[in-house]
Amino acid sequence: MTPSGPNNERLNKQLEFIVEIDKAKRVLRRTLLMDGSRNENDAEHSWHLAVMAMLLHEHSDVKDLDLARVIKMVLVHDIVEIDAGDTFAYDPSAQKDQAERERRAADRIFGMLPAEQGAEIRALWEEFEEGKTPEAKFAIALDRLQPFLHNYHTCGGTWKLHQVTKPQVTKRAQPIAEASKSLWEYVQWMIDDAVQQGFLKDSES
Amino acid sequence: MTPSGPNNERLNKQLEFIVEIDKAKRVLRRTLLMDGSRNENDAEHSWHLAVMAMLLHEHSDVKDLDLARVIKMVLVHDIVEIDAGDTFAYDPSAQKDQAERERRAADRIFGMLPAEQGAEIRALWEEFEEGKTPEAKFAIALDRLQPFLHNYHTCGGTWKLHQVTKPQVTKRAQPIAEASKSLWEYVQWMIDDAVQQGFLKDSES
Repeated sequence: MTPSGPNNERLNKQLEFIVEIDKAKRVLRRTLLMDGSRNENDAEHSWHLAVMAMLLHEHSDVKDLDLARVIKMVLVHDIVEIDAGDTFAYDPSAQKDQAERERRAADRIFGMLPAEQGAEIRALWEEFEEGKTPEAKFAIALDRLQPFLHNYHTCGGTWKLHQVTKPQVTKRAQPIAEASKSLWEYVQWMIDDAVQQGFLKDSES
Repeated sequence: MTPSGPNNERLNKQLEFIVEIDKAKRVLRRTLLMDGSRNENDAEHSWHLAVMAMLLHEHSDVKDLDLARVIKMVLVHDIVEIDAGDTFAYDPSAQKDQAERERRAADRIFGMLPAEQGAEIRALWEEFEEGKTPEAKFAIALDRLQPFLHNYHTCGGTWKLHQVTKPQVTKRAQPIAEASKSLWEYVQWMIDDAVQQGFLKDSES
């Protein structure tokens, strides 16, 4: 007889993890929603990236991208932030111990799952972090493009708030250049337009 | 020369859709977050379902489920609610014109995409709505299991608030029974436990 209810140990672990990751809905990012009403959270950010992957994978410079793996990667890439918190892209000091904090978070959170399944999810997260495979490169490009779109469509959003400059945004967006010629052309146009409209400072001075 | 920036008409349409669906982050469901702090929105709900699909597809009674299609389906299944709003599961009057409202929403929102891509996303949404394929049946089961888990873990949540009974919850959870023996055994155990703990009324009387 198959154990049911709380005696089904494998399903118990899976459901405990599923309950645990609900906390990602309360990890706030710096990015504002497109209407500027509030900060975005990790769960909705990850959803947005996954839909973007479905629609934009055709723009990858590498053909035959494994779309399913890109989607899975973006769905789980921020789960470690439940423990480690969101690290602001333009705050170098917070980034110092980020890797160590996130590694400990991965141990605890992915460790809740049945061993082989935890290892599978962890491998997806590590692939994203390492950014070496074409799928990871494309996932990272989306992870840069999405807040970029939010900042552009909220008249500067966090760029304005933190006095971010065109060279900083251009550097931050580099993974887009490395993954997709057509997305990069578009982003460059938006950067110039943002400067022209006064959403983004041209330089420090 | 490839048109760049706003002259790339295909990418223009895709990015306009991506900006538009940000509104799903502001469509509130009746379900509370697991800590009871606020209502859940459609975007984070869809993310949760997608991760659940990754972890729980092994429990499907049908083997060889196309997991990638289940994931894509749950990612887009609630986008129509941007126009049509969330329809409460236990409110039959609101469900009357739900289909028509959602069809019009699908016309407008999926119509923003390049034609063949809009048709692809619409087909995923229709497959979910029709609930006939094994992938759609499993996606619907997850869509029932997720708020069930939230209600169970918030000591009754919307069940208590709206005086929902065990027969109503059992009926609402039927798609789980039809998709997965092991998930259904677990759910039955939780329903009985919820009644015992006083989270859920046994019957009307």
